[in-house]
Amino acid sequence: MGALDAGCCFEDELDGGFLEDAAEEIGCECGVGSGSDSARAIEDAVRVLLQGLGEDHEREGLRRTPHRVAKAFREGTSGYKQKVKDIVQGALFPEAGLDPGIGHAGGAGGLVVVRDINLFSYCESCLLPFSLQCHVGYVPLGQRVVGLSKLSRVADVFARRLQDPQRLAIEICSALHSSIKPAGVAVALQCWHIQFPEALTCSSNPKHLSKLAREGWVKVSASSSSGVFTDDKSSVWDNFLALLKLRGVDIEAGDMNLSHVPSWCPLQSLETPLCNGHGAKSSKVGKNSSKTHAAMVAAVASILHSLGEDPLRKELVGTPYRYVQWLMNFKSSNLDLRLNGLILREVSSSSVTDENVTRLNEILSVLNIPFCSQCEHHVLPFHGVVHIGYLDEQKGKCIEASILRSMVHSFACKLQVQERLTRNIAEAVYSVFNSGVMVVVEARHICMISRGIEKVGSNTATIAVLGQFSTDPIAKHLFLQTIANNTCLW
Amino acid sequence: MGALDAGCCFEDELDGGFLEDAAEEIGCECGVGSGSDSARAIEDAVRVLLQGLGEDHEREGLRRTPHRVAKAFREGTSGYKQKVKDIVQGALFPEAGLDPGIGHAGGAGGLVVVRDINLFSYCESCLLPFSLQCHVGYVPLGQRVVGLSKLSRVADVFARRLQDPQRLAIEICSALHSSIKPAGVAVALQCWHIQFPEALTCSSNPKHLSKLAREGWVKVSASSSSGVFTDDKSSVWDNFLALLKLRGVDIEAGDMNLSHVPSWCPLQSLETPLCNGHGAKSSKVGKNSSKTHAAMVAAVASILHSLGEDPLRKELVGTPYRYVQWLMNFKSSNLDLRLNGLILREVSSSSVTDENVTRLNEILSVLNIPFCSQCEHHVLPFHGVVHIGYLDEQKGKCIEASILRSMVHSFACKLQVQERLTRNIAEAVYSVFNSGVMVVVEARHICMISRGIEKVGSNTATIAVLGQFSTDPIAKHLFLQTIANNTCLW
Repeated sequence: MGALDAGCCFEDELDGGFLEDAAEEIGCECGVGSGSDSARAIEDAVRVLLQGLGEDHEREGLRRTPHRVAKAFREGTSGYKQKVKDIVQGALFPEAGLDPGIGHAGGAGGLVVVRDINLFSYCESCLLPFSLQCHVGYVPLGQRVVGLSKLSRVADVFARRLQDPQRLAIEICSALHSSIKPAGVAVALQCWHIQFPEALTCSSNPKHLSKLAREGWVKVSASSSSGVFTDDKSSVWDNFLALLKLRGVDIEAGDMNLSHVPSWCPLQSLETPLCNGHGAKSSKVGKNSSKTHAAMVAAVASILHSLGEDPLRKELVGTPYRYVQWLMNFKSSNLDLRLNGLILREVSSSSVTDENVTRLNEILSVLNIPFCSQCEHHVLPFHGVVHIGYLDEQKGKCIEASILRSMVHSFACKLQVQERLTRNIAEAVYSVFNSGVMVVVEARHICMISRGIEKVGSNTATIAVLGQFSTDPIAKHLFLQTIANNTCLW
Repeated sequence: MGALDAGCCFEDELDGGFLEDAAEEIGCECGVGSGSDSARAIEDAVRVLLQGLGEDHEREGLRRTPHRVAKAFREGTSGYKQKVKDIVQGALFPEAGLDPGIGHAGGAGGLVVVRDINLFSYCESCLLPFSLQCHVGYVPLGQRVVGLSKLSRVADVFARRLQDPQRLAIEICSALHSSIKPAGVAVALQCWHIQFPEALTCSSNPKHLSKLAREGWVKVSASSSSGVFTDDKSSVWDNFLALLKLRGVDIEAGDMNLSHVPSWCPLQSLETPLCNGHGAKSSKVGKNSSKTHAAMVAAVASILHSLGEDPLRKELVGTPYRYVQWLMNFKSSNLDLRLNGLILREVSSSSVTDENVTRLNEILSVLNIPFCSQCEHHVLPFHGVVHIGYLDEQKGKCIEASILRSMVHSFACKLQVQERLTRNIAEAVYSVFNSGVMVVVEARHICMISRGIEKVGSNTATIAVLGQFSTDPIAKHLFLQTIANNTCLW
């Protein structure tokens, strides 16, 4: 208790940490805390992963990363320890309905739908967070309704577990049905899972960059229903869908009775040696020694165990391998190898012929280059677009857009922070075009939406200016104007 | 400590309550908990308010309302007890920059902007929550950057206090500047404050319903800046604004040096007898006895005190009066008086001449009627639109749209739940047109965004069907289709 005086409560990070620590201190097994032992076990495992990525986990930016990762995992899976009954109990309110002969309203038959609930969950197949928009409907029975926020709260309990979309929909539906005991429950989810970083840059058609950026996500819908919503003769499921459509949400009718969304996780296409009983030794991990790789896979399995999951559960057997494969995209030593691809291309002096290079006055620009990187503070993806502008002092020369895209991809594919990524790109271009370079990076950070702070929709922009751009406000303004005239979805 | 065994942690509501209780139990003054005494004092005050509204605070729907309101107030003002230094400390990371002669990037001069942070705060002038979108920029100095989420976290600390927009911008800016010690900080806020319920229905021009719905909000921008952002010669403030514009955010340049946004709170136009030293006795509160009114004002002042505020602070002197005046909009006895205005209007048999009444086959509809009500579970506004459809069995007759708008307003102006509001409206129309009535209510609940759950963007739809609508899926479908074809912003 003495350790909890006001002086120490706010040491270091606060992200809910104080209350978590307090919960641990008092030995409580509820909520986000499940004991400091499991937290320490996860932290140890994260250090193994960082070492496997060729990183020094004692360097300043990474020193507390294991702590942050452990906290994020435990918060993201805190749903295992919450009970729906406890949430719904005390939030059931008597509410008059109508005689069945007259109609359906209020606490007897009046359809209630809460739409557009933003949540995130963790993919059980690869351990990456996925974001989802959840829509919940129910038809009250017995002259009682549930507090609206509880529909969102219950959905969150199941989202904060390792999931796949269809099971998530089924579990939310089933839990609401048994706790509220209504005439029926309907749940519709729209889920977005991040793609491999390669998926962002593999297309050879640069006209479709904005489409590419969107293709960085695998999207699926899933739904589940009970009671009157499953009754073919009733139109209540159709009414539910119609109310979603008012908000622009289109759930395909075909989803309704899907028993399982087939392997939506893009990492499932990876060969998973553990699934075949060969163990980690048989995997091909490039230059990474199989010993290191096996240690990393074992570390992830231990994280699953620390979170209270069974690493041998059928759906989780391949998860450590896939998560390690995802991380290996961001191994630091990959960088220099790939950067060798950076070359200058000579083009005709009359015009820049690469259609993806925009010219405004003396500024050559390549805009909306999509990227996916990995935040070194939280080991979670951040993704968005890069805009590169440089002064055309070498008449007739430019850097081909495809080269810049490869370069961005290379700098992104390591543990990064957005500020450094911006500087890295600017310096690399400046090493070739050294009159002036300006780089703007716009990104969404999954660490900002999937951890305690949960600021869905927030996004970050960073600027680096070198050479003339750093002293010429008009050039800076012109480049920002060029970006504004070419904004795309990302 | 014995009271914190696993069995009792999840009693009743969970909304963060367990950790709050834990914090109280261990006597910690940090975070959301400030002792159960203050919670109980607020609960007592809320009971006084409910009585003043003519409500029985022991009825089922209201029984735990004082508890919920106290929790919401304490969570909403938990920023008083958080220290910025504690948040930023431990999240400052070394990050290379550039030689000033070369340019500005990374940890030395590279502009960093976090955009679109959704927050809410409490208006110090009337005690109602207001929502805001916060945009924060800073220019790193000394080869170090701050963890991106901390910009959002620090903004949240000041948002969770009683505020006005300009002071909020100044406090965020100043706190970030002194804790990060960067080259400069820029803060831009867009704030939305709810209007009087009357503002939604007072316009006589029914063409502008969707505009009216938007006019239910007072919007202001506020901004503050320090260091390089205030330097006329630098373009960094312009760059900040340009990055916001990429996200469609337009902050008027004029806001930059505003010392104070003049009385944006729409309730400031109320006569505030307490400000004039006359005391509550001189207020004119219609049928509410001055004694009850004085007790309500005193109760709100005691809430301010319990939250750790000084009720005599200049900006707060009129607050209890204004909050009580807001609540009095929702006094239950107002309902019947206003409903006397409901009348049938006979129109020519050839056509329905009221241009706001839509006809599709046999269904007459009045759509997108804006409303503002008050959630009885949290004593917080919910607002949105009502769609009313009924079967035209009395050829040549309809209910004028303005009458329906008045009726919606009357049913909304009491402590309500959306399910009941939907039923109330449907039953009232059914009492006149008893072949068939269907009502759809779509609403945003401030209790869903401003309390622990904070699901910005979530919204709720409810349906009531009476008579033929309850048995005719095609009629239901047609009416929902009519709504879909006439959606508006709300």
